[in-house]
Amino acid sequence: MSDTVTACVLIIGNEILSGRTQDVNLNHLATTLGGWGIQVHEARVIPDVAETIVDSVNEARQRFDYVFTTGGIGPTHDDITAVCIAQAFDVKLIEHPEIAARIKQRPTPDDVMASRLLMARVPEGATLIDNPTGGPQGFAMHNVYVMAGIPMVMQGMLSTLEGKLRSGLVVQSRSIRAYLGESTISQTLGEIQNRYQAVDIGSYPFFREERYGTTLVVRGTDPTVIDAAATAIMQAVIDAGETPEDLGTNV
Amino acid sequence: MSDTVTACVLIIGNEILSGRTQDVNLNHLATTLGGWGIQVHEARVIPDVAETIVDSVNEARQRFDYVFTTGGIGPTHDDITAVCIAQAFDVKLIEHPEIAARIKQRPTPDDVMASRLLMARVPEGATLIDNPTGGPQGFAMHNVYVMAGIPMVMQGMLSTLEGKLRSGLVVQSRSIRAYLGESTISQTLGEIQNRYQAVDIGSYPFFREERYGTTLVVRGTDPTVIDAAATAIMQAVIDAGETPEDLGTNV
Repeated sequence: MSDTVTACVLIIGNEILSGRTQDVNLNHLATTLGGWGIQVHEARVIPDVAETIVDSVNEARQRFDYVFTTGGIGPTHDDITAVCIAQAFDVKLIEHPEIAARIKQRPTPDDVMASRLLMARVPEGATLIDNPTGGPQGFAMHNVYVMAGIPMVMQGMLSTLEGKLRSGLVVQSRSIRAYLGESTISQTLGEIQNRYQAVDIGSYPFFREERYGTTLVVRGTDPTVIDAAATAIMQAVIDAGETPEDLGTNV
Repeated sequence: MSDTVTACVLIIGNEILSGRTQDVNLNHLATTLGGWGIQVHEARVIPDVAETIVDSVNEARQRFDYVFTTGGIGPTHDDITAVCIAQAFDVKLIEHPEIAARIKQRPTPDDVMASRLLMARVPEGATLIDNPTGGPQGFAMHNVYVMAGIPMVMQGMLSTLEGKLRSGLVVQSRSIRAYLGESTISQTLGEIQNRYQAVDIGSYPFFREERYGTTLVVRGTDPTVIDAAATAIMQAVIDAGETPEDLGTNV
């Protein structure tokens, strides 16, 4: 068992790739899973195309500890995620009695109910992910977690997984803001990165209040090393003639 | 030559995967390229890890007509995109005289200049993508277009490519808003999709002004078929007892 637990996020939906919809699910997943000790190492945005979904799921579930999908579990013809997950695992698609029971709580004409019950379909052997917003549940198949695309619903489903997933080392960060150009400090920064190889140092330039600057972010799993690298970075900023601003941890 | 021109977007940067930064580049690329007749068929968010970048570039440039990357072309140690593209194409990394000339326009101490000149490195044989914000240019290597991660800079670079890329059929859309549940209309919608296979019909539920509804979006390259499918959808909404709201094209 590794100390690092990894995840891949698969964002399923033509509407993201057409530009109609701005994805916000990746950011929420990255932040939340990160806090639980699961590091998102890759994300893919893929269309509502069965072959692409099946291939992407099969590749991702081999390469990463966890796969989290969003989108494509509604009742319309373009909601093909459940079918594709079943195909990826080569199992039957079944109607899950618990989801069906929840759907049937709200009475509706027969033909509409038939459509709604499409949302009860899961691959055989799947377990459920509860949906605190009251709608149909999501599901998990081995290491693949299948959730809704609507951010509010996805966030609700994800919240029910807290404490239930395998957890690795939590990546923490410390950020330092410096009003100087990246190039002014980049050589020293590279040296600090070499000295503290247990952390990742990122440099993110910005323009605010009419001034250019860069935010220097140290990320790692050992707070002692993070702080040592951050101290070295702050000294480098001072040596460059500027005053570093310590933004603190995990901001 | 195909009527459909496809693209893959590679968003390079740990800061997106950690959740520190919300990506907005994919949405801008999808919308802009879509308008030019280039369809974004996949996007990947990948970390600042050389092997991952090289592999992703090599896979994407075979599978798609174009690849657009954002991020990792600054002057710091974590800016490894240019090195990786050179490696992906198995060519040398050179200092491009035009980028170097632009960088040298602004005087700076020698050690800082050495860092800034890292941004002049491109794979041998690359052509430049101009940078209207005045900073170092991006570059293109065959079908791979390498741009900055900062949205303002990326958008500036992208704007200079207008009219210079191979263009296919432009995907257009027409959207209809209906205040009814997806399930109410999903069966009819599936039938309409079957009837008009030249378009993609998407259904996107929403909650606004205290009411649930769904936006039905018809996407395709033939306006006649789009309009025929949209008319059928509006009739289906009427048959379901609601009043469809025609939101028009490309919204």
